[in-house]
Amino acid sequence: MRELKFEELEALAIGAGVLGTGGGNHPHLELMCAEEVYRRGKRIRLIDPWELADDARVAVVCIMGAPLVTKERLPEPIAILRAVKLMEEHTGKPFDAIMSIEIGGENAFFAMLVGMELGLPVVDADTMGRAFPEAQMASFAIRGLSVAPFAIADIRNNAVLIPVAESAERVERIGRKAVIELGSIAGTCAAPRSGREIKDHAILNSVGRALTIGNAVLEARKSGSNPVTAVLAVEKGALLFAGKIQDVARRTTDGFVRGRATVLGKGAFEGRTLEIDFQNEFSVAWLDGERVACVPDLITVLDEETAEAIGTEVLRYGQRVAIVALPADPIMTSLQGLAKVGPRAFGFDFDYQSFAEVPA
Amino acid sequence: MRELKFEELEALAIGAGVLGTGGGNHPHLELMCAEEVYRRGKRIRLIDPWELADDARVAVVCIMGAPLVTKERLPEPIAILRAVKLMEEHTGKPFDAIMSIEIGGENAFFAMLVGMELGLPVVDADTMGRAFPEAQMASFAIRGLSVAPFAIADIRNNAVLIPVAESAERVERIGRKAVIELGSIAGTCAAPRSGREIKDHAILNSVGRALTIGNAVLEARKSGSNPVTAVLAVEKGALLFAGKIQDVARRTTDGFVRGRATVLGKGAFEGRTLEIDFQNEFSVAWLDGERVACVPDLITVLDEETAEAIGTEVLRYGQRVAIVALPADPIMTSLQGLAKVGPRAFGFDFDYQSFAEVPA
Repeated sequence: MRELKFEELEALAIGAGVLGTGGGNHPHLELMCAEEVYRRGKRIRLIDPWELADDARVAVVCIMGAPLVTKERLPEPIAILRAVKLMEEHTGKPFDAIMSIEIGGENAFFAMLVGMELGLPVVDADTMGRAFPEAQMASFAIRGLSVAPFAIADIRNNAVLIPVAESAERVERIGRKAVIELGSIAGTCAAPRSGREIKDHAILNSVGRALTIGNAVLEARKSGSNPVTAVLAVEKGALLFAGKIQDVARRTTDGFVRGRATVLGKGAFEGRTLEIDFQNEFSVAWLDGERVACVPDLITVLDEETAEAIGTEVLRYGQRVAIVALPADPIMTSLQGLAKVGPRAFGFDFDYQSFAEVPA
Repeated sequence: MRELKFEELEALAIGAGVLGTGGGNHPHLELMCAEEVYRRGKRIRLIDPWELADDARVAVVCIMGAPLVTKERLPEPIAILRAVKLMEEHTGKPFDAIMSIEIGGENAFFAMLVGMELGLPVVDADTMGRAFPEAQMASFAIRGLSVAPFAIADIRNNAVLIPVAESAERVERIGRKAVIELGSIAGTCAAPRSGREIKDHAILNSVGRALTIGNAVLEARKSGSNPVTAVLAVEKGALLFAGKIQDVARRTTDGFVRGRATVLGKGAFEGRTLEIDFQNEFSVAWLDGERVACVPDLITVLDEETAEAIGTEVLRYGQRVAIVALPADPIMTSLQGLAKVGPRAFGFDFDYQSFAEVPA
């Protein structure tokens, strides 16, 4: 267990943005919020999964909703706090630690903010190693652990609890509809997990992964080297494309933001076109019509100068970007994983192929 | 407290059908189910509200869903049983009695079936004095009592609990969406009510009202007199129209069946046309374009020969029918009541006028 230093908050924000793969964006506002809490003297205590007792009880939390809506109506940790309290009441047992469902985007910070509020350590792990749009895409669901009981709360006085469900997909569908009725944004707390379950089935040390990315970017910016190259170096990623955003088709529907972005090439990619599909997060990248990367690998759009991640909801004409692919966690590329987070789970009619295996 | 006799079950079905005002239909299948349980030796114990201790805990239950769907996928008391059990677990206290949210249609029987299964008496009362499509249309909600906590369960292994909500309308919207995800049909158990609350805010003796209607119909059928006239006599109702169903426009949407039926006049109504709007239940009747009855008064379509109620989902071309209006309970026609169940609550742009005040 160690305290995160104030200076690490920015690195965390940068890294979480990159791992957000377009969902959740660079968490500017959440970073400011965390820094403010630090100024008031509270600290994020990061606990390594292997320090958890096997019977430790961990709250697995996130903000659920359409990322576009989070830009219109700011998510507040109070909604997650209420969901955590609801789960404690439902199960009759308090939590020992907090963990984020996803390290990507704003949700990386919500677990931290809630942890500081409750005085609980935050586990250096998540269930996606990135961001994904749906509840059944969590590693626990992939490994067959029940997502229910599942608590949902808003910042007013509404809450929904799904005590049992026949599948994670059912939790996702019921929960998503409930969240839409609550204004397309709510705090959630999934089934309590034991320390043992986290060690066996979570994506471990993903907070550390975000910090590593963020530190590399900050270091590159300081030294004047290319921050995008720095991300690729620490992540063993690939540069898919560089160019200018030409067009974005985007609609918020069924509680998601869906669409496709078109990028015109520059430099080495002059005359070529990259198209990227997204459902909250980027799912498939097509270079001149040929698939070059797909879920569960991470496809991330970065500002070409700063390597700041650009979310699906703020993509716009004229942005000069580098599009990178980063490797998915092995849980996600396992057969069990691909059934939940592979291209077919996103409605595409082809199988997963690692970006590293695509011929140049 | 008294046991309902086997012979009374049919009267209850007939009366509940009439009070269903098109929602829920004549409960044929539920009647057969109740008769079968009677043959196995169980009995419905009907308890007068005034026999309830003030601190008695009563489960207020119903099947929630689109009536059309209940014809395709039979509702089973097990779903309500599961919702009742979920509520007992959530509150940590057992129930002393069962009550139906609505006396109209099939829901009259579900409270009875659940009561027999759990060995609990059924309160001679409901919250609507008829059937209504939405949760906030219950007398408890009209009187400002919280509808939450609200438990929803299906016949498989899915459940949803709304522990708190800022309004009954919010419970209705979240609950309706959850029910749609469960296949547009589920069992529900609303906030536990005390005996005192029932005496003060329920529609009292509505099971008795249904039995009175049913007995009058059975008596008329036996004696060869007109059963429709018998219903009007015991209910102080009015015959709005008699004729043949000419057309039915019906769609199942947002978890409701909505539409409009057109009836061509016969006999005294020759050459005239009645149109009836519905949302699960009949809401407004128009005679040659002039409004003659509207919610919360009961508009019911009866077979002209047998006075058997015909539900909105089984109306069809060629049926020969009598359309009657029956008076609403005073809670429903109060100012508080009309705000929740008057024409404007159903999207119409006019105020309530009792069918008894419409000039002939």
